[in-house]
Amino acid sequence: MRIAVDVMGGDHGCGVVIEGVKSALNSNDRIRGVYLVGNRQDVEAAVKKVGLDGERVQIVHASEVLTMNDKPVVGLRRKKDCSILKAVDLVKDGHAQAIISPGNTGGVVAASTIRLRQLPEVDRPVIATVIPTPKGGFVLLDSGANVECRPFHLLQFAVMGSVYSREVLGCAKPRVGLLSIGTEESKGNELTLEAFKFCNSCRPDILNFVGNVEGHDLFAGRVDVVVCDGFIGNIVLKTCESMAAELFNWFKSELQKNPVRRFGALLAKNAFLNIKNRVDPDTYGGAPLLGLNGLVMITHGSAKKKAIKNAVLFAAEAVQHHINEVITDEIQQTYAKLEKDRLISPSTTTS
Amino acid sequence: MRIAVDVMGGDHGCGVVIEGVKSALNSNDRIRGVYLVGNRQDVEAAVKKVGLDGERVQIVHASEVLTMNDKPVVGLRRKKDCSILKAVDLVKDGHAQAIISPGNTGGVVAASTIRLRQLPEVDRPVIATVIPTPKGGFVLLDSGANVECRPFHLLQFAVMGSVYSREVLGCAKPRVGLLSIGTEESKGNELTLEAFKFCNSCRPDILNFVGNVEGHDLFAGRVDVVVCDGFIGNIVLKTCESMAAELFNWFKSELQKNPVRRFGALLAKNAFLNIKNRVDPDTYGGAPLLGLNGLVMITHGSAKKKAIKNAVLFAAEAVQHHINEVITDEIQQTYAKLEKDRLISPSTTTS
Repeated sequence: MRIAVDVMGGDHGCGVVIEGVKSALNSNDRIRGVYLVGNRQDVEAAVKKVGLDGERVQIVHASEVLTMNDKPVVGLRRKKDCSILKAVDLVKDGHAQAIISPGNTGGVVAASTIRLRQLPEVDRPVIATVIPTPKGGFVLLDSGANVECRPFHLLQFAVMGSVYSREVLGCAKPRVGLLSIGTEESKGNELTLEAFKFCNSCRPDILNFVGNVEGHDLFAGRVDVVVCDGFIGNIVLKTCESMAAELFNWFKSELQKNPVRRFGALLAKNAFLNIKNRVDPDTYGGAPLLGLNGLVMITHGSAKKKAIKNAVLFAAEAVQHHINEVITDEIQQTYAKLEKDRLISPSTTTS
Repeated sequence: MRIAVDVMGGDHGCGVVIEGVKSALNSNDRIRGVYLVGNRQDVEAAVKKVGLDGERVQIVHASEVLTMNDKPVVGLRRKKDCSILKAVDLVKDGHAQAIISPGNTGGVVAASTIRLRQLPEVDRPVIATVIPTPKGGFVLLDSGANVECRPFHLLQFAVMGSVYSREVLGCAKPRVGLLSIGTEESKGNELTLEAFKFCNSCRPDILNFVGNVEGHDLFAGRVDVVVCDGFIGNIVLKTCESMAAELFNWFKSELQKNPVRRFGALLAKNAFLNIKNRVDPDTYGGAPLLGLNGLVMITHGSAKKKAIKNAVLFAAEAVQHHINEVITDEIQQTYAKLEKDRLISPSTTTS
C-alpha cells in the first residue's frame, strides 16, 4: 500500500506534515511507501530537517499550490500543476491507493471528484466526520460536500458511513440514524421522509437502521452514524466544534478567577485533561471523503504532526479493509433490496 | 394587562405552575390579572395550597387537557374543551393579551394559529428560543414551528427576532445573521441564497443584517439573532441542549473519580455554579411564538416554578413593549423596501 500526501496545502508549511508522515511510517510497517507531493526544493529541505528518508519515501514535484483563498473549480483550472491534483493523479494512475491533504476542502473535493470519479452506483462523494462524545462518538455525514441532496443520496451516505464505522472505526454493528425533528416515521421534511423509506427497506440485513434521530440523541450515545444533507451536517459540525471550544474556554477563565479556584483546578487537573484528550479532533486526524475510486482523507488546514499521523493511519486502515470494495458491494445490495420491495423499478436512475 | 395561563399541560401538575404565577405576580405590579385555565377542582385546591388569591386571580374551567401523547390537530378536534384552547380564546376574545402554556408544543402552535391568526403580512408564526452562551446568548428562530420554509418566511423571522431581541431582551441594535455554510454571499442553499437578498435589501435601516453566519459563529458572540428554517433550527437547538447537558455530566463524573479531584472540585465550586446559572434554560422561562394576534409563550413540559415565573415576566415585557405593533410596522417597512429595490412587485403575494 502506498499513500500520496499533498504536503503543501496546510497552514504551517510542509515541515509539520512531513513530521506526521514520519511518525505514521514508524508505527505502521504495512505502509510500503509514501509520495510527498510539493515543491521539490521545499520538500527536500524539510525531509532532511525532519530526518525522513529511505526507500519508503519518494518526492513528487508540483510547482503550484491551491491555497485557502483559491475558489476550488477556478483555482484548479488555473493551477494545473498544483500539489493536490498531482497527488490525486498518483491514485488515478494506480501508484497509490489513498491521498492525504490538509488543503482547501472545496479544492480537495473538486480535484478528487473530477479525476477519480465515483464508485459504481454512488452518485455523490460524502465527507464523514467523527464527532467525539462522552459516550464514544459518532460519524456525521454528509458534513459539507453536498449542499442540496436527494433521498437516494442520503441512503448512500448511510451505507458508506456504516461501512466506515464498522471497517475502520471498529464498531461491530453501527446504529445508523437519519437526523430529523422527531423519532416517529412521520416526522421530517420531504427529503428525510423519503430517505426514511429507503433506509428502512434495507434494515436489518444491510443497514442497522434505528430510524430518525433528533439533536437530543447525538450526544446521548444512541447512534453511531448520523445521516443528513451537507448543509445541515456542516452547520451541526461547526456548531458542536465551536460550542465545545467556547465552553472549555469559559471553564478555564472561571477557574482562573481567584487563587482558591486555581488551586482547586490544579487538584482536579487530570479530570480536565482526560476530557480534553477524548475530544481532541486530532485523534481522528481528518475526515474521509468516501465514495470515490480511491480514498481521500481531508485534514484541517491547521493540522500538525499528530493529526497528520492519525490521518495517514486511518487512511491505511481503510485501504487495508478494502472499504471501497465493501461499499460497492453493499450499495449494490441496497438497490437489489429496494427493487425487491418495489421502492424503485430496475430502470431507475438515481443521479 | 392580563395573562392567560394554561396550568394543566405540564408534566408536574398544576401546583408548580401556580407557584410560578404567584411569584411572577409578586414581582411585577403591572400585571393586572391572570386567568388560571384548567380543571376547576384541581386548580382551586392548588391555589389554596399555594396561597394565591385576591382580585388579580380568576379561575377558568376547562374539562379536558391536551396531553403530550395527543397528535396536535386531531387532539384539538376531539378535545374542544381543553385548557389550551380555552386559554387561547381568552386572548382571542380580548380578555387577555398573552398566553403561557407548558403543554404539547405542536398543540400550542396549532391552537394559537387556528384561533388567533397571523399578524398582517406575516405568513407563519415562528418559535424564537434564546440559547445562552459564554458571550451572552442569541435568539434562534425558527426553532421548530415550520419544517419547510420559503425565503420570505426567513425574512419575516429575521424581523420578528430582531424586534424580540431589542424590545424584550434589551439588545440595542441586534445583529441578525442567516445560518449558512460560509460567510460569503454566494454560499448557501436555494432557500438561504434568496433570503439573503431580501435581508440585505433591508439593511441597515430595518435590519442590522450581518450576512451569513456559520455554526462557528454562534458561540463566538458574533450574532444576536440567528435565522433558519424550523427543521434546522430544531436540530441545532436540541443538539446544543444535549451537548451542554452531556458535557456537564461528563465533567461531574470525572471530578468525582477520586478524593483529590473531589476536593479540587469543591474549591472551584463557584466557577461551576456561575456557568450553570448562566446557561440555565429556566432564566428565559420559555420560547415565544411570534407573529400571531396575541403573545404566546411556550415553556418546557417539565417547567417548574422558576421557568413559569420567568415565562410570565417575559410575556408581560413583550406586551408592555407592544411588540406585535412594532412587528407589524417593521414587516410593512420591509415590504416597502423590497418593492423600492424591485425585489418584489406591489402585487406579490408571499404565502
